[in-house]
Amino acid sequence: MNPTTPATSESRKESTRTRARTMRAVVKASAGPGAEIREVPVPACGPGQLLLKVKRAGVCGTDLHIHGWDRWSQERIKPPVTLGHEFVGEIVEVGADVTEFQVGGRVSCESHIICNHCVACRTGNGHVCENTRILGVDVNGGFAEYVAVPAVNAWRSPGNIPIEVAAVMEPLGNAVHTAFAGPISGCNLAVTGCGPIGLFAIGVAKAAGAARVFASDISPYRLDLARKMKADAVIDVSKESFVERCRELTGRAGLDGVLEMSGNPTAVRDGLAALRSGGRLSFLGLPKEPFDLDWNQLVIFKGATIHGIIGRRMYETWYQMHNLLSSGRLDIRPTITHVMPMERFDEAIELLRAGKAGKVVLIPWGEEE
Amino acid sequence: MNPTTPATSESRKESTRTRARTMRAVVKASAGPGAEIREVPVPACGPGQLLLKVKRAGVCGTDLHIHGWDRWSQERIKPPVTLGHEFVGEIVEVGADVTEFQVGGRVSCESHIICNHCVACRTGNGHVCENTRILGVDVNGGFAEYVAVPAVNAWRSPGNIPIEVAAVMEPLGNAVHTAFAGPISGCNLAVTGCGPIGLFAIGVAKAAGAARVFASDISPYRLDLARKMKADAVIDVSKESFVERCRELTGRAGLDGVLEMSGNPTAVRDGLAALRSGGRLSFLGLPKEPFDLDWNQLVIFKGATIHGIIGRRMYETWYQMHNLLSSGRLDIRPTITHVMPMERFDEAIELLRAGKAGKVVLIPWGEEE
Amino acid sequence: MNPTTPATSESRKESTRTRARTMRAVVKASAGPGAEIREVPVPACGPGQLLLKVKRAGVCGTDLHIHGWDRWSQERIKPPVTLGHEFVGEIVEVGADVTEFQVGGRVSCESHIICNHCVACRTGNGHVCENTRILGVDVNGGFAEYVAVPAVNAWRSPGNIPIEVAAVMEPLGNAVHTAFAGPISGCNLAVTGCGPIGLFAIGVAKAAGAARVFASDISPYRLDLARKMKADAVIDVSKESFVERCRELTGRAGLDGVLEMSGNPTAVRDGLAALRSGGRLSFLGLPKEPFDLDWNQLVIFKGATIHGIIGRRMYETWYQMHNLLSSGRLDIRPTITHVMPMERFDEAIELLRAGKAGKVVLIPWGEEE
Amino acid sequence: MNPTTPATSESRKESTRTRARTMRAVVKASAGPGAEIREVPVPACGPGQLLLKVKRAGVCGTDLHIHGWDRWSQERIKPPVTLGHEFVGEIVEVGADVTEFQVGGRVSCESHIICNHCVACRTGNGHVCENTRILGVDVNGGFAEYVAVPAVNAWRSPGNIPIEVAAVMEPLGNAVHTAFAGPISGCNLAVTGCGPIGLFAIGVAKAAGAARVFASDISPYRLDLARKMKADAVIDVSKESFVERCRELTGRAGLDGVLEMSGNPTAVRDGLAALRSGGRLSFLGLPKEPFDLDWNQLVIFKGATIHGIIGRRMYETWYQMHNLLSSGRLDIRPTITHVMPMERFDEAIELLRAGKAGKVVLIPWGEEE
Repeated sequence: MNPTTPATSESRKESTRTRARTMRAVVKASAGPGAEIREVPVPACGPGQLLLKVKRAGVCGTDLHIHGWDRWSQERIKPPVTLGHEFVGEIVEVGADVTEFQVGGRVSCESHIICNHCVACRTGNGHVCENTRILGVDVNGGFAEYVAVPAVNAWRSPGNIPIEVAAVMEPLGNAVHTAFAGPISGCNLAVTGCGPIGLFAIGVAKAAGAARVFASDISPYRLDLARKMKADAVIDVSKESFVERCRELTGRAGLDGVLEMSGNPTAVRDGLAALRSGGRLSFLGLPKEPFDLDWNQLVIFKGATIHGIIGRRMYETWYQMHNLLSSGRLDIRPTITHVMPMERFDEAIELLRAGKAGKVVLIPWGEEE
Repeated sequence: MNPTTPATSESRKESTRTRARTMRAVVKASAGPGAEIREVPVPACGPGQLLLKVKRAGVCGTDLHIHGWDRWSQERIKPPVTLGHEFVGEIVEVGADVTEFQVGGRVSCESHIICNHCVACRTGNGHVCENTRILGVDVNGGFAEYVAVPAVNAWRSPGNIPIEVAAVMEPLGNAVHTAFAGPISGCNLAVTGCGPIGLFAIGVAKAAGAARVFASDISPYRLDLARKMKADAVIDVSKESFVERCRELTGRAGLDGVLEMSGNPTAVRDGLAALRSGGRLSFLGLPKEPFDLDWNQLVIFKGATIHGIIGRRMYETWYQMHNLLSSGRLDIRPTITHVMPMERFDEAIELLRAGKAGKVVLIPWGEEE
Repeated sequence: MNPTTPATSESRKESTRTRARTMRAVVKASAGPGAEIREVPVPACGPGQLLLKVKRAGVCGTDLHIHGWDRWSQERIKPPVTLGHEFVGEIVEVGADVTEFQVGGRVSCESHIICNHCVACRTGNGHVCENTRILGVDVNGGFAEYVAVPAVNAWRSPGNIPIEVAAVMEPLGNAVHTAFAGPISGCNLAVTGCGPIGLFAIGVAKAAGAARVFASDISPYRLDLARKMKADAVIDVSKESFVERCRELTGRAGLDGVLEMSGNPTAVRDGLAALRSGGRLSFLGLPKEPFDLDWNQLVIFKGATIHGIIGRRMYETWYQMHNLLSSGRLDIRPTITHVMPMERFDEAIELLRAGKAGKVVLIPWGEEE
Repeated sequence: MNPTTPATSESRKESTRTRARTMRAVVKASAGPGAEIREVPVPACGPGQLLLKVKRAGVCGTDLHIHGWDRWSQERIKPPVTLGHEFVGEIVEVGADVTEFQVGGRVSCESHIICNHCVACRTGNGHVCENTRILGVDVNGGFAEYVAVPAVNAWRSPGNIPIEVAAVMEPLGNAVHTAFAGPISGCNLAVTGCGPIGLFAIGVAKAAGAARVFASDISPYRLDLARKMKADAVIDVSKESFVERCRELTGRAGLDGVLEMSGNPTAVRDGLAALRSGGRLSFLGLPKEPFDLDWNQLVIFKGATIHGIIGRRMYETWYQMHNLLSSGRLDIRPTITHVMPMERFDEAIELLRAGKAGKVVLIPWGEEE
């Protein structure tokens, strides 16, 4: 069933022949803070893989952690590794045994490379595969001119999706996964934490049919972005009570659900306190350290449900996201505050660290703005 | 815990004292076609009941059946009975043991009076109570100046919901119940049959987060109303293939769900054929008679689910509907094509029979337009 | 539809006429530790109520808290109040407006008296009603010769259910509710904490189709009862690692679910650690105080779900429990270690406090053993 | 990550070297009724495949259809093809790129070879893959000495599962999939049709926690097998009313669910009629032709759900089945009425056609009884 025609084979060889052997990339070169832009080999396109010319790539909070070399990074990252797990690219080579893609197509990528053998993988729950390896974390990623990815991880990106949006499907998928973990339609939901995924979640929840979406943060800059994402109310928790505002905004009924994007203990506790009986808190934001709850009041007596959320359902989340974007119901462009050359990676990191950006999208070397 | 104050008791008495003893009503007076406008006693307000001054009432397909005296009506209706099961009214008297309502409030009504004792009622499934009695069918309804209803059936109607919309919450609830019987958010759905409930369902599915909603019918008039409800595509099945159009509109993927509002055998078969594997058909439209399916191709081989839908979940559906309306996400006004005096009931029936109306709302005697 | 015949009315009057005006009861008489056996008035049987001659009553951990007058009790209990929220009785009087019960019937009772007006109540979630009052806690309960209960709270108890079992349907319902909060059939589950509800949960999970049920505790006495309830393995967590044993018992796969009955922080953390990715912990045991979790490792990275569980679904849980018991699939008699006269209430409390009992059932004055 | 050691490679070669080049097999040799036992080449073990020495194989109703050359067979089967889609074998060769299996292991097999690219496959619903090819139907199957199967389709069979049971995991999975399509625990279920999958379903439903399982058929032989599978009641629908018996057996409540295994129109209609409001009918039996329903009475007014069921969830169903079998909760041996040499395939077909067998298991040439 391999549809490769001789003509296509020819074009493959040609493109391979004319392609440079090395490329520029943002590399975590050694154990310690920082990252450097280096000349590295263009990756080979193995069996089952696609080689992509990277068109745009998003910077994630995880990249900040790796750049800052925090404890998690020290345990997980094995330098040298090319960073970048959010990107869109054009297919420039199709590996052996890959039948469903052709050179020239534009694809976004799922960053989780899963084992396909564990119980989770074998039951449609690859997002919690026990043996996940992540592009840009465990294997070379997309902050580079080229990246090789498993064809099963590639997602065809239709032309009506703006290229900056196509670059950030991976974190957008986190927001979709979190929202879709419980009821949305007709619900009153809150998003706690207005970093990029939180901002995405506002748009997702509204596009997916929430009656009202409230958003909380302490940063005026982020709250302003939340307003641009059309949150029905924004709550500056440095100035007002989250629980009280939510009760008021819901006519005393309480929230149907909380999409927790901050990892902040107070946000989690307040989110649970603001839930109606039987509500859900879907928990994506990673806390910096363990924290306690008053389980009786916040979880048990009110029959609340807490979902731990990681990654994206593979690939149910991608279909949902695709439908929301391609139908025009979801527009996340207000969250993309900066588009800049990948060469200025360090500047992007500084912007994010300073809280002066929503989502930052990078343009690799040789790509036009 | 009865909060009734002497003052309130007083106002109750007063209103009772000054109220007329008789009223005009649309009555199914005897076994046979038609209905007549009669002077009948104002209903008493028993324990647990509210007496409402009817403000607006909707005409339903069921009213046509009763008017036409079809086989179902002959078996079910015991004349004389005042018709009308969709209405909004103002509370003019509060019965004994009712603590949560006060004179002057505006309420819509659930039409199903349930037994509270059967298994369905005792497990939160009162919409399929085995002993349901229906206002305007089994007991006197709302095509009248006044109607007495159980307080548990009353639903507070906030001021920001237009009165014509408040009048048709009951059939709107059918549409919400049908849509919410399966996944909506991010889905590609079709509504088959664009009578009033089908038209409502288009709006509901879009407000509740469907990616795209397609609508089918054979009446240009109804398809035009479907466009006004912002269907993403309308399909005139007298002229084109439903299955083929749906495949095309979904990029060959097939529909995620069908909201079946016609009861038409071809619509059901085509709806199932157009479903993707694993999709759902939620079936509200009542077929006129039994009809067959190719179960293997349409249901079993594709792992489809068929839901029988009746009534509204009591009162989960009402909360969902309330949230969609009160947040402004759902606007069903384009479906209400006629608002006319209740005195002209026969004319309303004729309009509906001729397929020249969407939803018709009646204004009782003594109410202003 | 009132089925009361004159004959029945007559028998009602007779029984009322001959009944004593006072009775013995276990009463929390004043703020402070202890409880006393007192002569109090036989309760009146109000409209919508049943008056029961108590046949058997179970002692619950909550009764220990009230007896010991802990902080929760100090805030909640308003003495004097007759204790006892688990019981079975015979109907001796039927209140006005009650149509579905007759004198002579045997009924168990749901202890939660709910408001029927809040959102939870109106959407089939009365178990998390915001205005719940509890028999034997907020209103007079069943540690007495007679108790008056709302007829809606009464559950007909068929003759093939032993009377001691019929006495403890209320806490058994907690176990059923916890188990049925997630998948059971074919699952590997653990019950953490082998107090009476934990012991019930072992039997419930097995009867409801779990593949294997493991049970943990630190008390050899309780672990022995767990064996009698046919746990597939018992884990003495004072001597061995819960997580390691569960991994071994599941062939390294991890648990599908944990039914948490202890409220113990270590049990909760170990339970989450032993879950497979995507598993659930259903949390009924009340922690004494807030405690922390490593949310990242225990909840988020593994996509776990935590359910807060309280009470019983009204009345879905009762139907499930009824089916399991009446079909003979579930036998909880091994958990009932003591049946003793209610007169010896203080002794029952001492047995429970010393951890020398499973479930203790009391026989009221005048009832035969 | 390829764990192949030189020693293993060696053993592979040796086994290949000494293996015969041809084998006996039951082959559909040409378009028309019947099948013949032939000498055919031993299949090659391609990349991603396992070569199995078949130990036992089950005969299915589908084999009867193919043998009888009915309309479905005429359209689907492309002779010559080796029949047999239910079997257990020993791994004798491991194909390239297969890392998780080793020579000598015993495996059962999923018969559906899926595309992994369609929407269904990409969302964990491979059982309704649009491009499914079936072993023994579309590609050579297991009625032979050897069979080559995709390694992803192989399921490790633990030693405590009897070899005849391991042979019929595929149809047993149909029963598990049907039962697990809706609530089981604590439910009153009926199985309509007591062919082998229906008989399996009785055992599955009981092991998975149904309160009571009733079984219907018209064959005394099959009803006797249903009794051996411990059905709580058997209903001979040639002699008594299914609906009336079910109402009586459930105390007038109606069934919670029906597992439809017959494809018989009367069984489907009676099954729906016997459901309680809100119940489900999970529909696996393939009707011979389209048939009609009174949709209003049987589906809509009672809020029933109908699930079309095909295949097995890949591989969730296999885990559930594995847990039920390996824990000892499920014993399907009473359904296996005949174990006979594969050489006597025609005799097996005759037995099944005559209704004188439950499940028939075949022993390939060279295997010991």
